[in-house]
Amino acid sequence: MSTRDIADDLVTMWKAGQFHESGVKYWAEDVVSVEAMEGPMRTVTGKTAVNGKSEWWANAHEVHGAEVEGPYVNGDQFVIRLKMDVTVKESGARRQLDEMCLYTVKSGKIAEESFFYDS
Amino acid sequence: MSTRDIADDLVTMWKAGQFHESGVKYWAEDVVSVEAMEGPMRTVTGKTAVNGKSEWWANAHEVHGAEVEGPYVNGDQFVIRLKMDVTVKESGARRQLDEMCLYTVKSGKIAEESFFYDS
Repeated sequence: MSTRDIADDLVTMWKAGQFHESGVKYWAEDVVSVEAMEGPMRTVTGKTAVNGKSEWWANAHEVHGAEVEGPYVNGDQFVIRLKMDVTVKESGARRQLDEMCLYTVKSGKIAEESFFYDS
Repeated sequence: MSTRDIADDLVTMWKAGQFHESGVKYWAEDVVSVEAMEGPMRTVTGKTAVNGKSEWWANAHEVHGAEVEGPYVNGDQFVIRLKMDVTVKESGARRQLDEMCLYTVKSGKIAEESFFYDS
């Protein structure tokens, strides 16, 4: 699959609420996931670990709604803009997330995902 | 200046219509500019060449309005979302541009800029 094919499929899956499932489908075995934070959790490497992070996130949040824009493609990379209305289960806080998700594709798999937040 | 400082300044300058000026202020001498296209113009390297590309763009388009969102920061990178209402002077065509602009900062300068388009 081309970068555009994967980008289009991710957008389709996200619009259907399949955020975690899209990762499972496309993460490379040695995928790198980069958060916009400092510290040891900034970079998570490997499909098993990234899958764990994704499952943690899904279990820790209730998603009330999401708005997906894109994909925006350039070469082997693409950006999807994701706005989410969520409740953080532990605190009960309602939050409006606004993030840019940058993906790098190699050999038909997601080699890197990097999340940029508005602030 | 930190990555966030530069990101915030670019957003401020863009909101004031200073697109080209923001590049002149922050491009590194060996800046790389990457367009979402194939062919020899995909990558332009060096401040002089990137400045030339930017001046060409500014002269070839009439900007009627722009909407700037961000910055979205992650480590030494940030994304700005730019929507522009322009007329291509040569053809007279009115176009609504929607792009994600990804910047990589090194030593307080823009080391790379990469433009992702919606399609």
